[in-house]
Amino acid sequence: MSTTTHDAFLGGQLTLEQPAKGYRAGVDPVLLAASVQADPGQSVLELGCGVGAAMLCLARRIPQLSLYGVEIQPEYADLCRKNAAANGINATVWSADLRALPNELTALTFDHVIANPPYFDRASGNASPLTDRDIAFAGATSMTDWIDTATRRLKPKGRLSLIHKADRLPDILRAMDSRLGSVAVYPITGRTGRTADRIIVRARKGGRTPFKLHAPIPLHDGPQHVADREDYRAEIADILRRGLEFKLPD
Amino acid sequence: MSTTTHDAFLGGQLTLEQPAKGYRAGVDPVLLAASVQADPGQSVLELGCGVGAAMLCLARRIPQLSLYGVEIQPEYADLCRKNAAANGINATVWSADLRALPNELTALTFDHVIANPPYFDRASGNASPLTDRDIAFAGATSMTDWIDTATRRLKPKGRLSLIHKADRLPDILRAMDSRLGSVAVYPITGRTGRTADRIIVRARKGGRTPFKLHAPIPLHDGPQHVADREDYRAEIADILRRGLEFKLPD
Repeated sequence: MSTTTHDAFLGGQLTLEQPAKGYRAGVDPVLLAASVQADPGQSVLELGCGVGAAMLCLARRIPQLSLYGVEIQPEYADLCRKNAAANGINATVWSADLRALPNELTALTFDHVIANPPYFDRASGNASPLTDRDIAFAGATSMTDWIDTATRRLKPKGRLSLIHKADRLPDILRAMDSRLGSVAVYPITGRTGRTADRIIVRARKGGRTPFKLHAPIPLHDGPQHVADREDYRAEIADILRRGLEFKLPD
Repeated sequence: MSTTTHDAFLGGQLTLEQPAKGYRAGVDPVLLAASVQADPGQSVLELGCGVGAAMLCLARRIPQLSLYGVEIQPEYADLCRKNAAANGINATVWSADLRALPNELTALTFDHVIANPPYFDRASGNASPLTDRDIAFAGATSMTDWIDTATRRLKPKGRLSLIHKADRLPDILRAMDSRLGSVAVYPITGRTGRTADRIIVRARKGGRTPFKLHAPIPLHDGPQHVADREDYRAEIADILRRGLEFKLPD
């Protein structure tokens, strides 16, 4: 991981240093962060925080959060610490495997746990040795480990927020057990009427509300891409370029 | 089950005798049947067939199916046989518990298994003794038993089609194991932009296509109900009143 770039997020409210090659934060961690309904002063843990895109975007919108991140790859964890400091944000970041968290972290519970787990399923890929790039893209950790670790680290009534590829919805729901309830799925589509591309999934520890499958949220206007210009819907552009909240219905 | 009514389905193409009180077939089994892409001559098993609404609607649209049903309550199974005969449709109907199917049925496998399982979850209700009405509304059989029985009775590459309340999606996906693939969810909403009310779920035995969460299908036009007239969208009215196919994207 020799070369890095410095990239502007939230219309320049946040600058993140990240590897020039390998996993690079895009739209998804920004949407995830924008969807989290945290109150100032609450505690937030990001699992698999990478260079910190989601947690640092969240800190930019909501003041005085107690921010924590855990990231398996030391180089990404180092960049996350550096990015927090460079943007004037306090955050505690551990480099650790989700399946073997440090005692210092397992002693804590959180109001919110957020995650944007790797998108490609190792189980369906080849079995060559994992590179750094493989880990960030595909991970070596099962969905059950992600959800179980998140559940354990939540306070009672604490909230889990995930963003993932829509085709992983069965894995996510299967990994949730009776400790989590009030599960809600928000499909994210490229355009109106399309099959879901991403999903935001919310759940609450000890929640009792029945499962809800919400109306999809399209990212783009119109039936197809128009070359030469960005065509995010105004609500999405406001999230990505102005750092506004992604208002999801309850 | 003393009093019954005779009710027209598919704009009068089918008449079903059903109990005046207790579970009565409505829109859902008609939508399920309309969504099944069976070819003439294929075999179809309906689990929990009740008075036969779904399987007999399907027979009305697609000729020369080999039709089979299983229903735990003998009075409903009797009405199903009577309804098949009265509508000139050949069908074999057993009265049996899904968890203890007759040998005659377990000797068979099917191109399609369809089901519209009871909508209310006994686990979250009270524990008073089950009445006939309770069984039809809520069932005594877990989702795992429904899905496992369906999976066992499918031929290789055979197709499962379910309609259910949207809040049971986690139970349905958790009940599916690696024998099923190519799982697709079609949310059914009252109106555009609403939370899903029902879901149609398709899966294929031995299927390999990734999970898909499709765009929701609204039943009604406009933002709210207009009193004094039915306001199904034209596509839905064609299904309910003319017996046309419910065309779902692959």
